Amino acid sequence: MAVYTQVSAEAAERLLALYDVGRLVSLKGIAEGVENSNYLLETDRARFILTLYESRVDPADLPYFHNLLAHLHNAGCPVPRFIDDRQGNWLQDLLGKKACLIEFLPGISVSEPTPIQAAAVGKSMAQMHKAVAGFSEAKPNPLGQESWKPLFERCDRAAAESLLPGLADDIARECDWLEANWPSELPKHAVHTDLFPDNVLFRGDAVGGLIDFYFACTDFRAFDLAVTHAAWSFSNDGKSYLADIGRALLQGYGEVIQLSDAEKQAFALLARGASSRFLLTRLYDWINTPAGALVTRKDPLAFHRRLEFYRSADVVALFGVEQ
Amino acid sequence: MAVYTQVSAEAAERLLALYDVGRLVSLKGIAEGVENSNYLLETDRARFILTLYESRVDPADLPYFHNLLAHLHNAGCPVPRFIDDRQGNWLQDLLGKKACLIEFLPGISVSEPTPIQAAAVGKSMAQMHKAVAGFSEAKPNPLGQESWKPLFERCDRAAAESLLPGLADDIARECDWLEANWPSELPKHAVHTDLFPDNVLFRGDAVGGLIDFYFACTDFRAFDLAVTHAAWSFSNDGKSYLADIGRALLQGYGEVIQLSDAEKQAFALLARGASSRFLLTRLYDWINTPAGALVTRKDPLAFHRRLEFYRSADVVALFGVEQ
Repeated sequence: MAVYTQVSAEAAERLLALYDVGRLVSLKGIAEGVENSNYLLETDRARFILTLYESRVDPADLPYFHNLLAHLHNAGCPVPRFIDDRQGNWLQDLLGKKACLIEFLPGISVSEPTPIQAAAVGKSMAQMHKAVAGFSEAKPNPLGQESWKPLFERCDRAAAESLLPGLADDIARECDWLEANWPSELPKHAVHTDLFPDNVLFRGDAVGGLIDFYFACTDFRAFDLAVTHAAWSFSNDGKSYLADIGRALLQGYGEVIQLSDAEKQAFALLARGASSRFLLTRLYDWINTPAGALVTRKDPLAFHRRLEFYRSADVVALFGVEQ
Repeated sequence: MAVYTQVSAEAAERLLALYDVGRLVSLKGIAEGVENSNYLLETDRARFILTLYESRVDPADLPYFHNLLAHLHNAGCPVPRFIDDRQGNWLQDLLGKKACLIEFLPGISVSEPTPIQAAAVGKSMAQMHKAVAGFSEAKPNPLGQESWKPLFERCDRAAAESLLPGLADDIARECDWLEANWPSELPKHAVHTDLFPDNVLFRGDAVGGLIDFYFACTDFRAFDLAVTHAAWSFSNDGKSYLADIGRALLQGYGEVIQLSDAEKQAFALLARGASSRFLLTRLYDWINTPAGALVTRKDPLAFHRRLEFYRSADVVALFGVEQ
């Protein structure tokens, strides 16, 4: 949520000279994205996002993200495209970083989604899951189930205990349980795995943009849906489950893709996994981010509460009576 | 250079409902402004800057800034206007902060100005100085000459010495000298006092916007010009004086306003004052900002080097042969 690399107007103009997109009119660093530097760059012809990739994105993964977004765009999904320069290059070197010029999509991210918006997000995610048919590139999920136990082992247990007594043992047991019960045969393809409200742009109640694909990878489609369910259907602190939002999201998805019985049966388990993934990355960051750093630390317990919810959730009730 | 207060799309929509400016289409936090939170807010009709005033701007000063910008705008200067809501209010309460919706001006801030751009800035500043005729509100400069000695007394001398041996004594002597020699009779009116390259928006080589008036106050017009000279005419680190830039700036100003002989004679002194003002505020921030804080600390010595330049500068050479 910060600009790590300062790009001068002169540097942006030198970059733009490679492209056939018009002349620089405005350049504003924006407080967006997890670990990249982002600029809203306007020319006399269009607006773009200029992204400089900082430490967390591996440049070797960028071709995967590029190809996935090109595939989704061509299939009609509202995702931003990487822009090619005159030579056909979409990847540049700028100030010692890899950088891309990306289509700007207007739209606003809601903080308190309505059921109508949640249904639209569910539907849009399902359309994206349909649209990846034919996209053949594979990329393991670096934050998938197999990563959770090793990630927890890199967290200081005493620090976890100081957040909540019993938390360390609880996480250790959960990791074991997820490992023992994680499915292997569910439908799997390229998925987003981070579709929080920040990453959906609405125009009114319609989804105008799905953005920030830097956690995209190959994983269960129902896991992607479970991440989205955990991200959208709770109060921020995880204390309240918003049943109307959760149901609308799943019903919106169901209008386009009928989950199999196996996927529905696994849904609470997958949502426990999704909650654990964010609990663990937040816990790791909480412990290892110095107070006062540029990055705002997010409360790990907000996802521990979600985890507790899914442990006792009635799957039929989650999906609502209509399904 | 950060967003301190998070404004949700919903909160922005509630605010916009007070105005007749269209519906929210996009909202991006931007990394701009010294100590305020700024958003680029787009409606279906226009773009705006939404500013929330954080600790450094005293809300009691906002009417002065509002009235000055309205006066300058009406006089044809390229400054952003505060937007009135349907009730005629330009000042709002938002998330516990004072907030304003402000006209968006396109344009880019240059980091390496050309002489043509420097001349345009000088001319634009002079046009602004002409345009304030008839603006009768007064506001003492909180960072004017009288503030420098008290500000230095709040700085830890040992910390100053650790930056550069001898710095503390040098600043103390300079403050005394400036106090003894500071003029009292030069032309004085509302001025900007912070017109760094960041605060000028170019469209090509033309000045399209003068922004960030939150240090505006009543002071000598030649002091305002001296601040701009110190801000524009050096390499960032203050080690190199860029004579062609400095001369172009002063000549651009001189096309609109002929400085009096007294102002020209005082110019090197005023520029020593301008250098001391930024040396002192940067020194104070350097000593009192914890490492790793949100705000990037700026090098105080970059302005100590400017101070040393102006101590030995030949005023005639600064203005060039033509004047």
